[in-house]
Amino acid sequence: MGFNERIDEIKHFVEHGIQTIFLDREPQSLYRPMFHLLEGGGKYIRPMLLMLSCQAVGGRIENCLHAAMAVEILHTFTLVHDDIMDHDDIRRGRPTVHKMWDEPTAILAGDGLVTMAYQTLLKTNHSELMMILRIFTDGLLILCEGQALDKAFEARENVTVEEYENMIEKKTARLIEVACTIGAILGEAGRKEKECLMLFGRLLGKAFQVQDDILDILSEESISGKPLGSDIVEKKKTYLTIHFAKNASIEEKRCYRRFSEKDILEKEDISKIRELYKQAGSFQMAQRFVDDHIARTLECLDGLKDLKGKEDLKNLALFIQNRTH
Amino acid sequence: MGFNERIDEIKHFVEHGIQTIFLDREPQSLYRPMFHLLEGGGKYIRPMLLMLSCQAVGGRIENCLHAAMAVEILHTFTLVHDDIMDHDDIRRGRPTVHKMWDEPTAILAGDGLVTMAYQTLLKTNHSELMMILRIFTDGLLILCEGQALDKAFEARENVTVEEYENMIEKKTARLIEVACTIGAILGEAGRKEKECLMLFGRLLGKAFQVQDDILDILSEESISGKPLGSDIVEKKKTYLTIHFAKNASIEEKRCYRRFSEKDILEKEDISKIRELYKQAGSFQMAQRFVDDHIARTLECLDGLKDLKGKEDLKNLALFIQNRTH
Repeated sequence: MGFNERIDEIKHFVEHGIQTIFLDREPQSLYRPMFHLLEGGGKYIRPMLLMLSCQAVGGRIENCLHAAMAVEILHTFTLVHDDIMDHDDIRRGRPTVHKMWDEPTAILAGDGLVTMAYQTLLKTNHSELMMILRIFTDGLLILCEGQALDKAFEARENVTVEEYENMIEKKTARLIEVACTIGAILGEAGRKEKECLMLFGRLLGKAFQVQDDILDILSEESISGKPLGSDIVEKKKTYLTIHFAKNASIEEKRCYRRFSEKDILEKEDISKIRELYKQAGSFQMAQRFVDDHIARTLECLDGLKDLKGKEDLKNLALFIQNRTH
Repeated sequence: MGFNERIDEIKHFVEHGIQTIFLDREPQSLYRPMFHLLEGGGKYIRPMLLMLSCQAVGGRIENCLHAAMAVEILHTFTLVHDDIMDHDDIRRGRPTVHKMWDEPTAILAGDGLVTMAYQTLLKTNHSELMMILRIFTDGLLILCEGQALDKAFEARENVTVEEYENMIEKKTARLIEVACTIGAILGEAGRKEKECLMLFGRLLGKAFQVQDDILDILSEESISGKPLGSDIVEKKKTYLTIHFAKNASIEEKRCYRRFSEKDILEKEDISKIRELYKQAGSFQMAQRFVDDHIARTLECLDGLKDLKGKEDLKNLALFIQNRTH
């Protein structure tokens, strides 16, 4: 069985676990909106990382099922609430929860999801469960801090690369780091192995976010499952916008501003913005950031013992580097 | 030291604990909205019940500080999100979080609060902490279910008393039961004592909610800290509305409908509605429900050993019965 079959298997294992806990729950007015996005697919990156981290230190993925489900459910919670906050209408090719129902329903669905993430994690049978719960909880609070910074940056013009990196470490990288750390603990990792996997997760998480910044404008709408250019419309600070603001010519910036003030971007707008980012070297620098971070994640794997698990984590990192949505 | 001084002391103890964990947290754009409602006071019923339940089985309230803080923070989380869902502008005499800032900020503040509730609870030093976490989490999911039912009932006319009781058991009584149960566990209660306190909490919680239904229309606005009659404007199903719908004359209902279709209730409207509820006997029946449940809570206390703790719980139940806001 090759890498692709193995990660498909993990995905189905976790997906099936999540489906099971949603069976026959009442009231439907709570649990259907909670399940809506989970049903829509998703890449299952976080549960995969958790399980592969466990395996890479010699542990068994069967012991990680509840923890893996918990990180995916927690991730879904953040999507449901972020979509309300960012006024996003489409996610995974279907209406977001607040569009399908309404904002109160989506707020409550998110609240239900975070609770269910804890309920699922609490089913984990491991002597270090208390430590896992603390890591999970501290990570979630950091994630809220990152989301607050992300929102605050929307109103600011002069966000630096350092501020941006701090924000994405909190908003995106931390939960990925948490997934790897929990996997390491459940696999009975030693101190050094655990530290390798934590750093692996953090660097991969940062690469993942900058990759996301690139794909927001460079992906194909049919693959992406959401409208392109939403970062620009929402005045998000991304690696691209920050690099562009610092390095584009006055003429390029003037030209860019015409698009960034629009509420909806047409196909031609997207093409023009792509052109501007290319001219200013923003895509190249963002891609260099991603490649550099992926290279560093691979170095982190040197400290691990299990050959197959290590190879799978490497492949997952490369899969993330080369993803198209 | 009498009962009032003792519960004041508990309140200050928990309040001070909560203030301490909010000190110097960054970013302020997250932690100020999170602290906003906590700063606005509150009755601290849940932490009081938790600590007094512990004391009533012979435990020490010092061991309950983090758990007591956690239930108050969790309660505050539900208020912040409920205020968005119910479009309430005023709470504890000050603007609600989404009015003071905006909805995204309030959603995120709520998310931060639920996380901080877990973070605080996880500081509890007790061998049964895992069981406490499960009780806390299961209770929170039930609370979400109750909130979903409450919202769903707004669109329905024919809600029965049984459905209403089921809803308030989930929305309100469960967290109060959870507070008493955790207090009992932290006080090393035996099985029977724990069951007494669980039932005490559930019955008290139901009395508390029906009392809330009454006060929504019968309180003084200056004491209440929020506009009167909001249940009617929001088409909430309360003990009063359900009793009235079932027992009022056709003429009384016709008269009532004029008010229930308004967006804002004036002082005279409130008076008229009070009159209608009195005529239909709705206040009397609601008050009977409260008194009956309070009487049953007091019976639950017979199974407890500590005389002072028992007396304090009794006084707290009577205090809740006689509260004016």
